[in-house]
Amino acid sequence: MKRTLTLFLCLLMAGMAYSQTRPVIVIHGGAGTILKENMTPEKEEAIRSKMEEAMRAGYEVLDEGGTSTEAVVATIKILEDSPLFNAGKGAVFTSQGENELDASIMDGRDRNAGAVAGVKHIKNPITAALAVMTSSPHVMLTGEGAEEFASQEKLNMVDARYFYTENRYEQLRKIKEREQAEDAEGSIKLRSNPETADEKFGTVGCLALDKNGNLAAGTSTGGMTNKKYGRVGDSPVIGAGTYADNATCAVSATGHGEYFIRSVAAYDVAAMMRYADMEVGKAASTVVENIGEMGGSGGLIALDAQGNVAMPFNTAGMYRGYMKGKEDINTFIYGDEE
Amino acid sequence: MKRTLTLFLCLLMAGMAYSQTRPVIVIHGGAGTILKENMTPEKEEAIRSKMEEAMRAGYEVLDEGGTSTEAVVATIKILEDSPLFNAGKGAVFTSQGENELDASIMDGRDRNAGAVAGVKHIKNPITAALAVMTSSPHVMLTGEGAEEFASQEKLNMVDARYFYTENRYEQLRKIKEREQAEDAEGSIKLRSNPETADEKFGTVGCLALDKNGNLAAGTSTGGMTNKKYGRVGDSPVIGAGTYADNATCAVSATGHGEYFIRSVAAYDVAAMMRYADMEVGKAASTVVENIGEMGGSGGLIALDAQGNVAMPFNTAGMYRGYMKGKEDINTFIYGDEE
Repeated sequence: MKRTLTLFLCLLMAGMAYSQTRPVIVIHGGAGTILKENMTPEKEEAIRSKMEEAMRAGYEVLDEGGTSTEAVVATIKILEDSPLFNAGKGAVFTSQGENELDASIMDGRDRNAGAVAGVKHIKNPITAALAVMTSSPHVMLTGEGAEEFASQEKLNMVDARYFYTENRYEQLRKIKEREQAEDAEGSIKLRSNPETADEKFGTVGCLALDKNGNLAAGTSTGGMTNKKYGRVGDSPVIGAGTYADNATCAVSATGHGEYFIRSVAAYDVAAMMRYADMEVGKAASTVVENIGEMGGSGGLIALDAQGNVAMPFNTAGMYRGYMKGKEDINTFIYGDEE
Repeated sequence: MKRTLTLFLCLLMAGMAYSQTRPVIVIHGGAGTILKENMTPEKEEAIRSKMEEAMRAGYEVLDEGGTSTEAVVATIKILEDSPLFNAGKGAVFTSQGENELDASIMDGRDRNAGAVAGVKHIKNPITAALAVMTSSPHVMLTGEGAEEFASQEKLNMVDARYFYTENRYEQLRKIKEREQAEDAEGSIKLRSNPETADEKFGTVGCLALDKNGNLAAGTSTGGMTNKKYGRVGDSPVIGAGTYADNATCAVSATGHGEYFIRSVAAYDVAAMMRYADMEVGKAASTVVENIGEMGGSGGLIALDAQGNVAMPFNTAGMYRGYMKGKEDINTFIYGDEE
């Protein structure tokens, strides 16, 4: 009798262990005109290696039983701290020569969410988005109000000079030069299309599925080079750049943010799954196609509660990857990689 | 032969005239604990009369062949200029004793959109949202960047004192007093729920359907009394507080903005119509029910391209109205009015 009970308990525990969801991490590091001919092997290696490091950090959180939101923050912090991506250190410059950062996070368990926009002194904007979600009654805080809140929350604050990188400043300088040249010719084309000058949108994003089957999504960005002072893109806009709901999927977008706001891109993936019974891959690629038809470029990552991953984009390349096990880690850069 | 041709032309013109869409204007002036016992006949009359004035202004634009976006701006400007509503003059105060205004507009023809958030010196924030949509490459501008843009666009700029109203300042003072009392008792309930102190969200919104069958939606607000400095609600968030697409509907929301952002409320009405073939009334009421289940309160107005109007809310009342002809003008305040 005792042996039967022991056997029963063992089977029950095995069943419980089996019923735990297998953790998944998905990331992107921006979409754009990323072509092999413009890439050095060293830069490619650096980008793949940083993406792997970031995914491993998030995966470790999940593997140890942490929540999907904790994993998203752990992963995005590493991408924010790297000058390789347009988020945190490495953010692009506004037309005024400043760095204005946006970030957001959403918890698929209860659709709670937090976002900051236009912050200049928070080292890791994703941690501020998390604090808005967990420690404030609000969802979105902007500018100095967001920074005051972050200080109160004892987040890591830095001097604005922390975000300076020569590479990004040089990008702004080149665009300004071109603008002046075009002004001399009487053309306003470039000014009304700041993205055409640098068709690489290095926004970073992460999705996570934890052992309890909960989804989360986060996005962090420096916006577009030469963006107007005060411009907010899709990254801190819940529904546009970031969305998560256990009932459907988690989504993080990257690209020409204005089009992603107008098409409510991130939520649209979930809406197609929720109301049209579409599976995540089909929904994600349909949303990116629709954005292409509007004239917008970019991509997104999506993850459903069963661990299915989609990473569609309509640009030449998108820094992206997923991790479904300690040995199952994958990074992609160009359009023809599968 | 000539007579036949004349008859043919007359019939053709009549046909064309008939094929023009009948203009519609729908507005809201906020939802909340609006109860007849707390209202004076004078205040009720003032509110109904201001709502009618605003609708007539928008309707006139449509009747003269103007666009739905022009009508939305004409109507909302009147509501912004009135101290009766929490938008423009009459905006509530932040916890710092300032007025921070948000507004957005969306054109259903091409889903172009514009929004401003956290502005303090623009007399009519809806005109700034329109300028962002029509004269900038961006969708959302915040804070000083938005104000600089508005100045360049020669919009009407005012001293921050313009937005001061004794009534609204008194509301802030009362909440602060209660906060202090609660702090003394060690309670933080009120501080984490700033909306409970004044459950009237006076955001204004307008939807229009023009003679060419184009929809537009706009929303303008001062946010929540005692909101944290830098807080942005749903009003300037495309997809949450405002949405318009000729293929589905135009929507403007009012209420506890955080819940409307998390549920991507305005776009959700359109998504239910688009993917689940729901009609506008059913979609609108389902979204408001879902928000109620999340714990959020408020309401929204929705208008489809056939002129069908929905105005659901889960609060005691919502200032609302629609106009479908010069003599067909209707205003409602309480929950039991139809």
